[in-house]
Amino acid sequence: MPTNAPLNRKLRMGLIGGGQGSFIGRVHATAAVLDNRAALVAGALSSDAARAKASAADYDIAEERAYTSFKEMAAAEKKRPDPVDFVSVATPNHTHFEIAKTFAEAGFNVICDKPLTFDLAQAEELLKVVEKSGVVFAVTHNYTGYPLVRQAREMVLNGELGEINAVRSNYIQGWLRTRLESDNQKQAAWRTDPSKSGIAGCFGDIGTHAYNLGRYITGLQPKQISCLLKVFVEGRALDDYGVAAVRFENGALGTVTASQISHGRENDLFIEVDGTKAALEWHQEEPNKLIVRKNGEPHKIYTRNGGPYLGAAAGAASRLPSGHPEAFFEAFANVYTTAYDAMVKRAAGQSFETTNTVYPNVYDGVEGMLFITKCVESSKADGGWVPFRHPKSRA
Amino acid sequence: MPTNAPLNRKLRMGLIGGGQGSFIGRVHATAAVLDNRAALVAGALSSDAARAKASAADYDIAEERAYTSFKEMAAAEKKRPDPVDFVSVATPNHTHFEIAKTFAEAGFNVICDKPLTFDLAQAEELLKVVEKSGVVFAVTHNYTGYPLVRQAREMVLNGELGEINAVRSNYIQGWLRTRLESDNQKQAAWRTDPSKSGIAGCFGDIGTHAYNLGRYITGLQPKQISCLLKVFVEGRALDDYGVAAVRFENGALGTVTASQISHGRENDLFIEVDGTKAALEWHQEEPNKLIVRKNGEPHKIYTRNGGPYLGAAAGAASRLPSGHPEAFFEAFANVYTTAYDAMVKRAAGQSFETTNTVYPNVYDGVEGMLFITKCVESSKADGGWVPFRHPKSRA
Amino acid sequence: MPTNAPLNRKLRMGLIGGGQGSFIGRVHATAAVLDNRAALVAGALSSDAARAKASAADYDIAEERAYTSFKEMAAAEKKRPDPVDFVSVATPNHTHFEIAKTFAEAGFNVICDKPLTFDLAQAEELLKVVEKSGVVFAVTHNYTGYPLVRQAREMVLNGELGEINAVRSNYIQGWLRTRLESDNQKQAAWRTDPSKSGIAGCFGDIGTHAYNLGRYITGLQPKQISCLLKVFVEGRALDDYGVAAVRFENGALGTVTASQISHGRENDLFIEVDGTKAALEWHQEEPNKLIVRKNGEPHKIYTRNGGPYLGAAAGAASRLPSGHPEAFFEAFANVYTTAYDAMVKRAAGQSFETTNTVYPNVYDGVEGMLFITKCVESSKADGGWVPFRHPKSRA
Amino acid sequence: MPTNAPLNRKLRMGLIGGGQGSFIGRVHATAAVLDNRAALVAGALSSDAARAKASAADYDIAEERAYTSFKEMAAAEKKRPDPVDFVSVATPNHTHFEIAKTFAEAGFNVICDKPLTFDLAQAEELLKVVEKSGVVFAVTHNYTGYPLVRQAREMVLNGELGEINAVRSNYIQGWLRTRLESDNQKQAAWRTDPSKSGIAGCFGDIGTHAYNLGRYITGLQPKQISCLLKVFVEGRALDDYGVAAVRFENGALGTVTASQISHGRENDLFIEVDGTKAALEWHQEEPNKLIVRKNGEPHKIYTRNGGPYLGAAAGAASRLPSGHPEAFFEAFANVYTTAYDAMVKRAAGQSFETTNTVYPNVYDGVEGMLFITKCVESSKADGGWVPFRHPKSRA
Repeated sequence: MPTNAPLNRKLRMGLIGGGQGSFIGRVHATAAVLDNRAALVAGALSSDAARAKASAADYDIAEERAYTSFKEMAAAEKKRPDPVDFVSVATPNHTHFEIAKTFAEAGFNVICDKPLTFDLAQAEELLKVVEKSGVVFAVTHNYTGYPLVRQAREMVLNGELGEINAVRSNYIQGWLRTRLESDNQKQAAWRTDPSKSGIAGCFGDIGTHAYNLGRYITGLQPKQISCLLKVFVEGRALDDYGVAAVRFENGALGTVTASQISHGRENDLFIEVDGTKAALEWHQEEPNKLIVRKNGEPHKIYTRNGGPYLGAAAGAASRLPSGHPEAFFEAFANVYTTAYDAMVKRAAGQSFETTNTVYPNVYDGVEGMLFITKCVESSKADGGWVPFRHPKSRA
Repeated sequence: MPTNAPLNRKLRMGLIGGGQGSFIGRVHATAAVLDNRAALVAGALSSDAARAKASAADYDIAEERAYTSFKEMAAAEKKRPDPVDFVSVATPNHTHFEIAKTFAEAGFNVICDKPLTFDLAQAEELLKVVEKSGVVFAVTHNYTGYPLVRQAREMVLNGELGEINAVRSNYIQGWLRTRLESDNQKQAAWRTDPSKSGIAGCFGDIGTHAYNLGRYITGLQPKQISCLLKVFVEGRALDDYGVAAVRFENGALGTVTASQISHGRENDLFIEVDGTKAALEWHQEEPNKLIVRKNGEPHKIYTRNGGPYLGAAAGAASRLPSGHPEAFFEAFANVYTTAYDAMVKRAAGQSFETTNTVYPNVYDGVEGMLFITKCVESSKADGGWVPFRHPKSRA
Repeated sequence: MPTNAPLNRKLRMGLIGGGQGSFIGRVHATAAVLDNRAALVAGALSSDAARAKASAADYDIAEERAYTSFKEMAAAEKKRPDPVDFVSVATPNHTHFEIAKTFAEAGFNVICDKPLTFDLAQAEELLKVVEKSGVVFAVTHNYTGYPLVRQAREMVLNGELGEINAVRSNYIQGWLRTRLESDNQKQAAWRTDPSKSGIAGCFGDIGTHAYNLGRYITGLQPKQISCLLKVFVEGRALDDYGVAAVRFENGALGTVTASQISHGRENDLFIEVDGTKAALEWHQEEPNKLIVRKNGEPHKIYTRNGGPYLGAAAGAASRLPSGHPEAFFEAFANVYTTAYDAMVKRAAGQSFETTNTVYPNVYDGVEGMLFITKCVESSKADGGWVPFRHPKSRA
Repeated sequence: MPTNAPLNRKLRMGLIGGGQGSFIGRVHATAAVLDNRAALVAGALSSDAARAKASAADYDIAEERAYTSFKEMAAAEKKRPDPVDFVSVATPNHTHFEIAKTFAEAGFNVICDKPLTFDLAQAEELLKVVEKSGVVFAVTHNYTGYPLVRQAREMVLNGELGEINAVRSNYIQGWLRTRLESDNQKQAAWRTDPSKSGIAGCFGDIGTHAYNLGRYITGLQPKQISCLLKVFVEGRALDDYGVAAVRFENGALGTVTASQISHGRENDLFIEVDGTKAALEWHQEEPNKLIVRKNGEPHKIYTRNGGPYLGAAAGAASRLPSGHPEAFFEAFANVYTTAYDAMVKRAAGQSFETTNTVYPNVYDGVEGMLFITKCVESSKADGGWVPFRHPKSRA
């Protein structure tokens, strides 16, 4: 560590967004350097020039690389002998597209927050740019970074669960139970504003995570979707609750439930996967445990780094012995470090996987936008089935 | 105890079904006498005459009251000076109707296993009989008998949860993961046989329980339902998995998920209720705890008989101090004892509640049959919405 | 059921204590008949004659067998053609000895509440009587009746845990946190009164259960004990908190912790057993789960009736499929039913096990009194070690 | 953030130990910079010169500040215009003293791993050095850094628990169940070697953590201790299991249980605190929850950053919204950041708290050594009571 061989140096990171008052920018910056494989060296931290400059010191970004616009940054970094290797996009949804496109076109690797873009059209266009550019592009569906989520994925891939029949994904929160947005709470304000968040609220923000988690673990291809979106808090413009059913191509049935109006629930993303040979259960709020069940056997609790019964993925994503809990930051960092592996290969001119990557990628991002689009479409059609499958999505 | 005042004696019970090899008959017999308010004195324990006679001794039923047919029993008991006060119907689904009808018409109170009948038409006919007869009629949706389920109901009725927005009911089992019925496993055989179980498998057996639990706790009136039923085990005739969405009249959204193919899951009925003021969570496998949540407050765990913060219902349904766990039999018994209260009133010529009873009643039974019927109808229509509301269902 | 073959009839039960206002008498009466293998036919329900008579109806005891003194009862039953087969002693501690002795001497089997007697001398004398009489004698250390406790015992006996090194038994309650006894709360009053409870309070009432549970599961023989008893509530005469260390003969170390002053704790008896091959953990408040751990393997949760991985004992003590929780009453009933097996053998003139019985027996009762005595002795000696081993205790 | 105002710059960190193959050195380095308030700039990473040099690159330490001995480092840094502000000592126990003393005498702040020194005499001597020097000195009893542990401490200090009666601290592991040290497992080898670990094994390594946690939360002063240490794995030189009882000056009774031989247990540090007004329970393996109980009220689960019911300490130690779990690294970092606050004050010539600090300090370190010493003394005296109180320990 830094184990960026054969690059033999730390990766240079640029940050877009994350200026003073930001929450997720700080999470990116912390996670990106957790393993000392990257250093944050440049940024366009705010669209407000003064704030952009003022925020740079918080991140130890040298004044000359504290840009006041991402366009300026892309141009300037391009000319440097030591340009950034990648940029992290930690701005509100509606700005992702232009930023990510600019950097990808300029040949920079990109780590982009989710949802990928403001709408599906942007996502498809961005996908073309990324494919053409050949850059590494990760999307921070960060919950895929948990070691035991990767263990779950490995078990499905290995066939330990048999054929998958059912996937129940849930993401239950309560923080939007009241109309916080009318109190000018900043997070609530933009997330419930269609001009910033896009066509979906709860389902765009967290429904996509729940859906993505099931897809990441199982690799099942969707075929059709039926969705019901609800607004329970009066006066709100976007959904704050919803359920969806997904028919997968193998005949499996998935359900996605997302709520932001369940009193006292914090960040309760949980998933159950039923296979013909075994079943799994995992909860994000207790991420160091994975429950594995088989008829006629005791329920088994796998622990994060708990022993040789685990596959390679969980251990590779762990930093501490089992019993020493790891959590949100480490999972976020795992998305980064697996993307770093690809960046290093790219820098060394080696080939690298682009679709079925360990980290969530641009295809997952596009599929997320498709999911949002189809959910809204179905909900408007009273929950009618709509075809749902992206031709390039991961297996 | 027996606290059957003003009747001033124990109630006399008759049992239909429950012969040697039966499971649920023994549960009825145990639960019915747990509090010493009733005694089992007569029975038509089997349609096989020899087995009916042989089984009587197991229950201390005198030979003269060990009948070989329920019709004979109804007639004979009618003539006795000390006839049974009620009969418990613990036979397979397809026989409920004729038995229950016979006894109700003869003026006997009835405790009937669920689902109420083989099909909806029978249920509606039975309802008329019951209404005309004036007998007490309970249906063993036994999970409503758990003290903390009754506490949950009381909290909703009291307005402690505010307006209800969402109800998520789940009943997850794994025992039909393999095709047990082809191994002649008796329980599996009749439950997966349309000629005995009716039009639904998993949803008839346990989906109805999950739906009923949400209705019992919230009193919300349904308006429309959309349902998807699946058969995952090859060669099976009836559904072994399903999901339904229910639109309630107040705008709330309910979901019902039922599975019999989830490896290692035993009898995992659980429910979450979201109100504008608070939210609840309860799990049948840990029935002595109820989780109550409110934004900005600690999560609270109510315990069965845990203190003055509970309403009257939980304590009334408890026999032991908190920390001394109670479980399945006691909940089953609570359905009985609350029905006994009504039977005693009836015997004393007093009026008694028939619709919004503490015990699940014939209206709940009919609504369960309607639920099954509408689920199958919707599923055949690819999950399309179908109107769903019984004019007489409980509030 | 009743499966009292070769006796071919239900056992006849007599109850001493349990008059109106009693708690534990009702528990005995309920548990004893849960499986329909016994019927309560006689009683000396109260030392108050009027109350004795009045209470009889609650239990359906015929007036002629509703005695007003246990001595009268023993004499009268002795003369009957259909005398009781056993009596259950559910009176306060200080009266156990005389009652149990009377019935054992008269040849009646006895099920006695714990602690066995008021003091050790009584216990030793009673033991002699029991041995001489040849009656079946059980002591209701009821927690040994839980199916998964018996599973734990079976696993230790089978060597699945290897050599036992450590046993940590805990029994944590909170109900005596305040000085309830000064409010005339009946349970609190006699349990904190040395003239009724004997020399120990918390340790006599629940410390003995915790100790017994470890002994029952492991069969380890004690050698020495060190104990510290505390009175935390001002003005209380007996201990309300205590810890003990037990050195076992094989070199293992046991600890017993008991509290009645831990806010909000209800009846939290839990135990951990460490063996060289595996370790166990069990909690009375979640009795349907047993946690089994082995280095390098997932944690395993055994469920009550969960499958073929269990030994014979758990299934034999279960009445319902796994997932249908059983609890306190059923465990209590299991003590009874295993004692019934011995009573039936005795009645049939067959030999039966007396020391290492599945039910807790008179030797366990005597050892409990020895435990209390030695704990108090050690505590008075500032926690000094005192020899501790009964020559006849179970293996 | 670096929020190191009024210093207005990041703190400069030096690391002693942590060379390739080290575990805890990497933890220190990660935790120290997690909030970007410090940068690692110098190190004496190994006593092996080649390894020291080779390891420097892993931490981005410039070659000129990659020292091959801590003495050289202290001397060289002293002369620099930009010397390190503090050093972290992450070497085996037996080397702590000389290193910490050297740096403290030279005026550098020190963050030292625990146990503080090899023996008590060293600890007392080091204490004098620290007091004389006026440096900030923290000891990484890292579990005190968990937000909800600090919440617990705040609740006790605020009187929310009333008078404390009992503290039960437990630290249960299983990794030394077999004689790993004979397989040359590095961690096992030095931790079971008296020449490296000192006079205690399990109790020195983790018993001290458990004891410290109780002291940190309650502030109770000890008076006497009784301890039993056991070696269960044949051939091992130091204890691998033990229990201790602590009499506190206010009459409370504490118990400390530590095990390294409990199969499958990972890092199960947990504590229960009983006060006259309320009781607490916390588990390190589920650190984002604190259970608070009061008779007659529901059990309450406080979550890490869960709302206004929490005091100031928990929020100040949190980086993420509740429901986004934080874990081991963040707690470790919290020890650092609270020590940084003191370092900044010292650098600015301001006064700062030295005894009752939020971070564990040199007095806690000395008390830990005293605890080990007295435990071994008592255990050798067959568990006899020994006086136990350090004159300068925290309140």
